[in-house]
Amino acid sequence: MKRCAFLSVGDEILRGFTTDTNAGWFARALSPFGWEFTEGQTVRDDVSSIHKALTRLKNADLILITGGLGPTEDDVTREGAAAYLGKKLLFREELWQEIRERFKKRGGEIPLSNKKQAFLIEGALPLKNKNGTAPGQFYDNGTQVIILLPGPPSENRPMFLTEVMPLLRDRGEEPRLKSVIGVVGGGESYVAQIAEPSGLQGIEAGYYYNSEGWVEIHLYNRDLTKNEFFACRQSLVCRLHRDPSLFLFSGSSLNETLFRELRKREMTIAFAESLTGGLAGDRLVSLPGASSIFLGSVVAYDNAMKVTSLGVRRETLKAHGAVSMETAQEMAEGVARVSGSATALSFTGIAGPSGGTREKPVGLTYIGIAVMGDVSVECFQLHGSRERIRRQAVSYGYAALLRRIGYSYR
Amino acid sequence: MKRCAFLSVGDEILRGFTTDTNAGWFARALSPFGWEFTEGQTVRDDVSSIHKALTRLKNADLILITGGLGPTEDDVTREGAAAYLGKKLLFREELWQEIRERFKKRGGEIPLSNKKQAFLIEGALPLKNKNGTAPGQFYDNGTQVIILLPGPPSENRPMFLTEVMPLLRDRGEEPRLKSVIGVVGGGESYVAQIAEPSGLQGIEAGYYYNSEGWVEIHLYNRDLTKNEFFACRQSLVCRLHRDPSLFLFSGSSLNETLFRELRKREMTIAFAESLTGGLAGDRLVSLPGASSIFLGSVVAYDNAMKVTSLGVRRETLKAHGAVSMETAQEMAEGVARVSGSATALSFTGIAGPSGGTREKPVGLTYIGIAVMGDVSVECFQLHGSRERIRRQAVSYGYAALLRRIGYSYR
Repeated sequence: MKRCAFLSVGDEILRGFTTDTNAGWFARALSPFGWEFTEGQTVRDDVSSIHKALTRLKNADLILITGGLGPTEDDVTREGAAAYLGKKLLFREELWQEIRERFKKRGGEIPLSNKKQAFLIEGALPLKNKNGTAPGQFYDNGTQVIILLPGPPSENRPMFLTEVMPLLRDRGEEPRLKSVIGVVGGGESYVAQIAEPSGLQGIEAGYYYNSEGWVEIHLYNRDLTKNEFFACRQSLVCRLHRDPSLFLFSGSSLNETLFRELRKREMTIAFAESLTGGLAGDRLVSLPGASSIFLGSVVAYDNAMKVTSLGVRRETLKAHGAVSMETAQEMAEGVARVSGSATALSFTGIAGPSGGTREKPVGLTYIGIAVMGDVSVECFQLHGSRERIRRQAVSYGYAALLRRIGYSYR
Repeated sequence: MKRCAFLSVGDEILRGFTTDTNAGWFARALSPFGWEFTEGQTVRDDVSSIHKALTRLKNADLILITGGLGPTEDDVTREGAAAYLGKKLLFREELWQEIRERFKKRGGEIPLSNKKQAFLIEGALPLKNKNGTAPGQFYDNGTQVIILLPGPPSENRPMFLTEVMPLLRDRGEEPRLKSVIGVVGGGESYVAQIAEPSGLQGIEAGYYYNSEGWVEIHLYNRDLTKNEFFACRQSLVCRLHRDPSLFLFSGSSLNETLFRELRKREMTIAFAESLTGGLAGDRLVSLPGASSIFLGSVVAYDNAMKVTSLGVRRETLKAHGAVSMETAQEMAEGVARVSGSATALSFTGIAGPSGGTREKPVGLTYIGIAVMGDVSVECFQLHGSRERIRRQAVSYGYAALLRRIGYSYR
């Protein structure tokens, strides 16, 4: 593996006014090509801070720098990189020409301050920027590659794909084998313990509990053959399958798995939500084309709406309460009837932080699963914050439905 | 100002599996207390990398470390910090007791691997974690403070507020005057341009476009008196108020503002959602106690559900389409009627990325606002990705309703 380092330049990041999503994106883009991020740094818009940070990273095979290429006085990444390399910045007429043309097209007058964007490190290649005025720079001294890109993702990502990748491809090693498995039903330490009770040989594994309330297992080959890698993955999958509380799926998106499997079966879906407040629908709608399977939800947060919009019986609510197996069942039946959907999920539970009792503690959740008129209810005791419980509930529901319609990871 | 450095530990961040939002949050949380982030680093789950990174940061007054406190083998932040400080890690029976009790409450058996979470750096104070098993640590050697917190925001943010802040408050400088203003209706550069056409004297301003699709203005006093600071803020507010496309509110939560203002007026709310898929309800339900104002939503993603569950007329859909002023109006009327709510919002629009036409481009959004039976509709042309458009739509709707019920920031 070749080692990359990431340098992010900008006061606005250190002050918390911009969330830096560049490092993650570039890491994912480079990793299959055998380039691996081993370190990241964030520094201020300041020549000596940039210079020092680059000096610390002198052993990296590649340094990717984002930010600080704008036209204002505090944009000094060019100067910092030139100082590190011991090179001059040279004015390039053809770059200045391009920047001026960009302004002309927009119909604006060009501020003279933009002239600084036409300076290139001696010996560097310019990288075209179709979505902004700041050109990037690519410098190779034989042992280390330095890349300068503007900060905004809308500019640096297209530039990376069209300008940088072709230059890098030749230098990178072969991509490593990789596999991602999703697991619903346990935290990261629980899943890791089941997956590798005695460690893994020749494979690197990462366990990440994500914001949707399930665990991503990322497996990277270290030194196995292709067959050995997949055999090792398979035995890990078998161990996980043996635990009935865990649900496995392939890839890194539970939403997309549900979407794809319903579409494959030409089945529609609807939700009756209480606890989840609309989240179950929202997650599906985040996918383009959701309308081909998703009919809608009834979010019956208030009990009266459970009765009027879902047809839950008043007697059921009185006898068993809103958080009960019986209510979950009638909610799922109700939304399937109202929407005419082939499948439906209902969610009722106690999100907390208050409102729990001895019999019905915070985290108690009933999920109704309706498939072609047949309804079953599953009960879970979830843990954590209000938001964690609500997010987990949706994932547990998606998993329960996938199981019911016959999806199984292999 | 005291200088802080941020160290983020985790292979998952360097590999791009987790977007690190911690640095930004902590920067905003610390800044009013006179602590300023001057540098950030991200390193692997590796003792020597952590040790080296901390050594580089030895001149910082405070180092905030997040991540790597889990129970798995690769969680070695404790070891790395202890190595830097030249201290031992000591097993603390009372911490182990707390961790075991946490597991007992959940009814699960405790993995022995969790035992490592009960080790504390010699001389450090433990920081309670109410939302996870990993306790934090606070170490002060007289010239430098080192803080270890778990990576997940749901754990480290509450810990920071309840455990760390009281300890820091004594050491920090006097908090600077600070004021946060929320602005719905424009991007960060647009808002900045209106707010300070000729710069601000004696005040530092940060403009932060957040994940809910509105701009947070953070104002910090630099060298004004209290009266001068508030006068300066007031004139900025007046300039923003003059732009009719902008909606202002106080504080940093639009959801809470809506919740509070509805409660104050003893008004309930319901949503008719299409474009937003359930997000409008979800955002309110994320607040504890939402049931006191929120009745429910009808997410009518499919046109048939708009007719059956909301009473939108077939002729309206045929004549004007689902994305139209007329449909938005009938959706809002419908959900107000079905739920019996005092106020209601409806959302219909084109989220993209495809599905736009010349007459109805991607981002076109109609929002119906019903208050005590009186319905009006507003039309917006939103921009950006599918998710950005959907998130913005909810915020624009909340803002429109707040305006209609008479809320005004002053």
